[in-house]
Amino acid sequence: MKWWGWGVEGVGFHWEDKPGFAPFVEYAVGLDLHTAPVVGMPEFDKLTVAASLAKPAFVASLASVVGEDNVTTDKMERVVHTYGKSIRDLIRVRANQIERTPDVVVYPGSEDEVQRIVDLAVAADVVIIPFGGGSNIASSLEPRSDESRVVLSLDMGRMRELISIDEESGLAVIQAGALGPDLEQQLNAKGWTIGHFPDSFTHSSLGGWIATRSSGMQSDKYGDIADIVRGLHVVRPSSPGVSGILVIRPIPSASNGPSVREMIVGSEGRLGIITEATVQVHRTPAKRDVFGYFFPNWEAGTAAMQEIAESDAAPSITRVSDARETGFSLATSKERHGFEKFAAGTVLPTLMKSKGWAKQPGGIENNICLSFIGYEGSEAHAKRQKKLVDKIVKKHGGMGVGKGPGVLYDQKKFDTPYLRDFLLDRGAAGDVSETAMPWSKVNQVHDAVRVAADKAFDQIGIQGWIMSHLSHSYHSGACLYFTFAFVMGDDPIGEYNVVKSAIQQAFIDNGGSLSHHHGVGLEHSPWLEQDISAQGVAVMRGLFEAADPGENFNPRKIVADVKETVKAG
Amino acid sequence: MKWWGWGVEGVGFHWEDKPGFAPFVEYAVGLDLHTAPVVGMPEFDKLTVAASLAKPAFVASLASVVGEDNVTTDKMERVVHTYGKSIRDLIRVRANQIERTPDVVVYPGSEDEVQRIVDLAVAADVVIIPFGGGSNIASSLEPRSDESRVVLSLDMGRMRELISIDEESGLAVIQAGALGPDLEQQLNAKGWTIGHFPDSFTHSSLGGWIATRSSGMQSDKYGDIADIVRGLHVVRPSSPGVSGILVIRPIPSASNGPSVREMIVGSEGRLGIITEATVQVHRTPAKRDVFGYFFPNWEAGTAAMQEIAESDAAPSITRVSDARETGFSLATSKERHGFEKFAAGTVLPTLMKSKGWAKQPGGIENNICLSFIGYEGSEAHAKRQKKLVDKIVKKHGGMGVGKGPGVLYDQKKFDTPYLRDFLLDRGAAGDVSETAMPWSKVNQVHDAVRVAADKAFDQIGIQGWIMSHLSHSYHSGACLYFTFAFVMGDDPIGEYNVVKSAIQQAFIDNGGSLSHHHGVGLEHSPWLEQDISAQGVAVMRGLFEAADPGENFNPRKIVADVKETVKAG
Repeated sequence: MKWWGWGVEGVGFHWEDKPGFAPFVEYAVGLDLHTAPVVGMPEFDKLTVAASLAKPAFVASLASVVGEDNVTTDKMERVVHTYGKSIRDLIRVRANQIERTPDVVVYPGSEDEVQRIVDLAVAADVVIIPFGGGSNIASSLEPRSDESRVVLSLDMGRMRELISIDEESGLAVIQAGALGPDLEQQLNAKGWTIGHFPDSFTHSSLGGWIATRSSGMQSDKYGDIADIVRGLHVVRPSSPGVSGILVIRPIPSASNGPSVREMIVGSEGRLGIITEATVQVHRTPAKRDVFGYFFPNWEAGTAAMQEIAESDAAPSITRVSDARETGFSLATSKERHGFEKFAAGTVLPTLMKSKGWAKQPGGIENNICLSFIGYEGSEAHAKRQKKLVDKIVKKHGGMGVGKGPGVLYDQKKFDTPYLRDFLLDRGAAGDVSETAMPWSKVNQVHDAVRVAADKAFDQIGIQGWIMSHLSHSYHSGACLYFTFAFVMGDDPIGEYNVVKSAIQQAFIDNGGSLSHHHGVGLEHSPWLEQDISAQGVAVMRGLFEAADPGENFNPRKIVADVKETVKAG
Repeated sequence: MKWWGWGVEGVGFHWEDKPGFAPFVEYAVGLDLHTAPVVGMPEFDKLTVAASLAKPAFVASLASVVGEDNVTTDKMERVVHTYGKSIRDLIRVRANQIERTPDVVVYPGSEDEVQRIVDLAVAADVVIIPFGGGSNIASSLEPRSDESRVVLSLDMGRMRELISIDEESGLAVIQAGALGPDLEQQLNAKGWTIGHFPDSFTHSSLGGWIATRSSGMQSDKYGDIADIVRGLHVVRPSSPGVSGILVIRPIPSASNGPSVREMIVGSEGRLGIITEATVQVHRTPAKRDVFGYFFPNWEAGTAAMQEIAESDAAPSITRVSDARETGFSLATSKERHGFEKFAAGTVLPTLMKSKGWAKQPGGIENNICLSFIGYEGSEAHAKRQKKLVDKIVKKHGGMGVGKGPGVLYDQKKFDTPYLRDFLLDRGAAGDVSETAMPWSKVNQVHDAVRVAADKAFDQIGIQGWIMSHLSHSYHSGACLYFTFAFVMGDDPIGEYNVVKSAIQQAFIDNGGSLSHHHGVGLEHSPWLEQDISAQGVAVMRGLFEAADPGENFNPRKIVADVKETVKAG
């Protein structure tokens, strides 16, 4: 029984048809896939799950709102709603470290039901944690381990309708529980797209995107979720004569004080329950292409991305992998395996030789960096953008290699979770961490994180691997996305913490944010003060304290306990 | 002595060389400029100004921080720092209604001095109101009339340096007191521009733009100030071991909780003193052109603007005036006077006839709408954008009329304040009010505001005038900017309030925000709850209450007193 994981039957990572993969893994982390023992998920019945603290009367009151079928204290449901899907989360479940589950899971069917649940919960001093797709990797979902109150997981999974489209304004009203495919299929059927495609797309929800400040791979064109979401409904406690529904109307831009919209975005459940959003939608573009490019080295690739961002060109995707990730991509290609095979039969080897591009020993790693650049719009517009970009690529010594790698990119973009599960079964932990910084700091952060991670791997005495890509370009900077892996020793969580902390600290020390699009949760909150200063944290903590004096809404996430507030002044 | 107003000698509005102007004013508000008595500013000595409440010891302590020359309790300085520049402000000063001046004006020279002033003020329970260019028109600057504590006006005018440019990232660090020309000249000298040109440009400061969520006329390309500002320094009260400086580092996009950056933007002094900002800057474009277009009517013009926003074209300015404002623009043109003279000698009359474009009686007003569209970038890019736009304009029955009107636009864009002073001297009050809404509501808001204003003019029994333009296009909507005027009767402030309130209410009732880029202050705060809902106001009030428990920072602006807080839950 597949009671955990992404819950999609028949989807997974198949290494057998990727001959370059096993040698790559051995090279990178020293793991021999042919001999590694395979350890899957434990049987659910072997897990230690505490009894629910929810009293039958409280559960009955919830049932009176949502119906008997939509409220449960079932152990499996409670465990599934305990964590997100970070490697820490997966390891803890496998290690039977279910610290604190929610006590009751509720599935509301309407905003009115959410309001009634919120009011019941706050009146009973119950903790409410909203749950969308459950794909969070920043520990934003787990109840605090020492929580003595009843914890309610509010699963938005039944609220996934496209309510309406304002075709003249390019705005759609969508319920917050809609997962990526839910909303995109409903929009596509009418000729529209939201243009928001995070890696977690198939398993994450609109409400979750908003609550964690998500960004999708086509953000260069469509914006981050903070740009895409214009209107919001957020359910907060009601009081006599005052509706609990916070309504932000869909205004394209407004001067009405500090942005409450931008307080809700990224709030991870601490300001209330997001039930509905009005989002920007676009007509499905006539043309959508992703082209591949190679750069002789990382610095040339990032310089080209910066120049593209500064130029008149407006591509929908700009992405360049470092040499290590390029090697990984080619090794996991289904069509061609490794750079040699990719290049075989093309003019690439000759071109590379004529350009003097270096290739390091090892057969996997060389200096060459693979890049993807996407173009969308009318046929003529897409062509024009590509022409502008091609000129910049050439100036930086790069070369175009057609749509082949782009197709590969589209095929693989949602595969990573399955690959991670596959490695975890074989004893290797893999996870990701990302940041954003000004263009002038991109190479500095890239190099410093590599140094910091290697030092951390040394410290815990294991062979580790870290690789990255630049994606999401802005006028003044970009996102760097790191993937790291290591073979787990005796203390996987402790080892993970050493590596992850070293990476996060290198972000901050070199001018990066604590995250570009994954959120804060518990995982990144230790770096919040270094990111936005003590006064910034004080202002944010004050916001939470005033908005939720009873600490009922996902307490302790993003910033530590309200009670610990240090007020300035 | 010109002790009030914009303080620029030799600049003003010269109606004599605009033969179309006087007939237009008579037609619009029934004022005969040839016979209207001219009443200028009163002598300063005639004004009633209360004594300063600041104790000599407190003033001396401020002087010990900034030097004797940079702190004053002088009456004229205090009056100049009392109000912004709304018509209500001008009328009140002329009517000797100086309700409550600041007690002391301080000019800090550095962030450290600001910190020391803030700490001294908070320790003494003094109210601090930051002052930039003083051009605010939302009553964001005036002390509350019943304030019994000492009020300190913190004038940022000495802090106007461009500190540094990160050329690789397109980011500049600039002190918050820099006025538009200060910072643009310093940037231009190095080949850069901020691209932010609000109508108040020459008299408003970077800190003021940020504190009020300003937007400039080229926002379609460069973004609103909320997009332009990436990093911030905000001085708040320090405490032992905790710096009072809130630092937001210049990150292009981050997922680090509710956006503190977006809380500071629009905060109108309530969260602390903005001393420095890191803003996006762009290399001066090779090409910058503004072209004029005519549309047969308003609906055709706004439909074209919507289609341009949805298209692949990316102009820097999109603007269309309604028929009334078009008449006004042509009447105040220096080069040509009125539509007939503008069109004389061109193919326009023939074209219009062949298209059946209507012209209403009156000689001033017809249905035709003047539009300006700007293009920036490389020569080829600007040309390409214009080609895309021209096609859309044609589709909606419009026609291009070359760069002539565009040059006119550039000449006139900063003239409005002088025009307003000119009319006020002759007994007519003129002011502006603006909003933003989804594209689907643009025509509805436009028409409803006209109806509401006319009803208000009827109610107070005067001949009034209102006209508007659409500017600042976004994917999902736009800004509508209204200008209104009337000849003042016995109670100018009361009359103004009736008209302004009617306009604001029509914004809200028809799907618009309370303001697009002027701020909230006291003037618009009555509509905040209708704009962002009671829960939205509760969240914002909670933010202010927690961040400023002593109510020392520009209290009562945006939302009413902290003490009146209604907490939800």
